[in-house]
Amino acid sequence: MRRQKLPERGNTMRRLEASKTYRILESGPIVMVCTNDGARSNIMTMGFHMMVQHAPPLIGCVVGPWDHSFTALRATGECVLAVPGADLARTVVDVGNCSGAEVDKFEHFGLATSKAAKVKAPLLSDCLYNIECVVHDDTLVDKYQLFILEAVAAWSNDSRKERRFLHHHGDGTFTADGERFDLRDRMTLWKQFQVDL
Amino acid sequence: MRRQKLPERGNTMRRLEASKTYRILESGPIVMVCTNDGARSNIMTMGFHMMVQHAPPLIGCVVGPWDHSFTALRATGECVLAVPGADLARTVVDVGNCSGAEVDKFEHFGLATSKAAKVKAPLLSDCLYNIECVVHDDTLVDKYQLFILEAVAAWSNDSRKERRFLHHHGDGTFTADGERFDLRDRMTLWKQFQVDL
Repeated sequence: MRRQKLPERGNTMRRLEASKTYRILESGPIVMVCTNDGARSNIMTMGFHMMVQHAPPLIGCVVGPWDHSFTALRATGECVLAVPGADLARTVVDVGNCSGAEVDKFEHFGLATSKAAKVKAPLLSDCLYNIECVVHDDTLVDKYQLFILEAVAAWSNDSRKERRFLHHHGDGTFTADGERFDLRDRMTLWKQFQVDL
Repeated sequence: MRRQKLPERGNTMRRLEASKTYRILESGPIVMVCTNDGARSNIMTMGFHMMVQHAPPLIGCVVGPWDHSFTALRATGECVLAVPGADLARTVVDVGNCSGAEVDKFEHFGLATSKAAKVKAPLLSDCLYNIECVVHDDTLVDKYQLFILEAVAAWSNDSRKERRFLHHHGDGTFTADGERFDLRDRMTLWKQFQVDL
């Protein structure tokens, strides 16, 4: 399949220190993974991920050979993790329903992209946050398809009005972030992690 | 420190197939980890965890030597992951604020326990779900404190009225599960994972 022209916007996002990645991912939002194999970009939905270390920011995630993105991630060692707001719930499911081997998902779903700073995979312009990553450790990839990524750049799209993350309950049901409990004063340990995004 | 008498209730929870663990953990709830070192039990709060595999159910999680629970988890290879409802937000923080080296947290915070089926660590009676785990792979423990656990039994406490999970945003703020999006019909792949808890 030849490369398709993607809808692309200038990157007007605000740069974040990559060390703030845990503030984006620790709560377990559903994410979309962008890759670029040198010829074209692809995108998939991913629910199996975690923070492994605050700094340098390490992320664990499962991308398997059954995912078309696996080959590009393996070959390039790069990807972008994009965190959608609740307004993109249907897109999250639709992107997970089809394979990049058969369809250009950016074009098919009208997903605008912007250029990343440190990796070739694109940022997803309409997501709340984008995290540029490089593969840090592939020790457990063959056994569990478990990659350890390092976040090398991060972005916030402050123009998005819908700020709620989406959490996938494993069966096609999702919840958006609801009632907020601010227990920062009560948390006496780990004060150094109380940074703004 | 000698063993303290814990408030213990009979286990009146409903047994779940351990293979349903992804339905509990994929959305990224904050969890509490119970261990038992042979002499006494301990509990900690944990936000760095993920599903690694649906079946057999594998879970990745970070427990470090800075956590008092680390020694027991290393020595026994067993733990329980307990998922609290939003009504336990303050307990989640308080448990994370202190060390089991200095205080019996079950007694101090009045946390009732019940007996697990397959491991010596206790279940937390007032949590929504409890997952009994054994260490499956410790390859990355020395490097990243990353354990791969296998879920060997799971329980639901259907009597709890507060059903919302809590998600930790890394800084002492939490959100409870909010608006629900049921996109099961839209999800055409992975239909086999649409099981009830």
